[in-house]
Amino acid sequence: MAEENTVFIGKKPTMNYVLAVVTQFNSGSNDVIIKARGRAISRAVDVAEIVRHRFIHNAVVKDIKIETETLTGEGGRSANVSSIEIYMSK
Amino acid sequence: MAEENTVFIGKKPTMNYVLAVVTQFNSGSNDVIIKARGRAISRAVDVAEIVRHRFIHNAVVKDIKIETETLTGEGGRSANVSSIEIYMSK
Repeated sequence: MAEENTVFIGKKPTMNYVLAVVTQFNSGSNDVIIKARGRAISRAVDVAEIVRHRFIHNAVVKDIKIETETLTGEGGRSANVSSIEIYMSK
Repeated sequence: MAEENTVFIGKKPTMNYVLAVVTQFNSGSNDVIIKARGRAISRAVDVAEIVRHRFIHNAVVKDIKIETETLTGEGGRSANVSSIEIYMSK
């Protein structure tokens, strides 16, 4: 799946990301991946749920993967952060 | 699967819930469900990741489900909140 079908969830309002996912589906994509790390994970779940309940009623959550990513800071210290990938299809 | 195999994630420190899941596995359960709502969803993912990377190395995430729950407040107003269920097995 191409990188352009992926929506990264950050700190903006939830509806911004809902709009991004809906736009992907409406511009011809049959698959969209929603990715998030750390505290944005809750928002990623909100986005998937709002998209399929309110906007794209034939969209389903096909798969969900969780992982641990290791981020290395400037000082060379590393921190582990959880991430989620939600695979949606219509 | 019995209700006693379920760990509900709340606002306590993440390691409290990690300990609860590890205790379930070590007391004979082969399956544990981690449940969370709203902002605790990110913590639920952290708990699952910490359990399988640091404590129970043969534990795997078998399935993840997301849902929308409707909560009704005292005034009769309702609010939607996302929830997650992470099914772990060893």
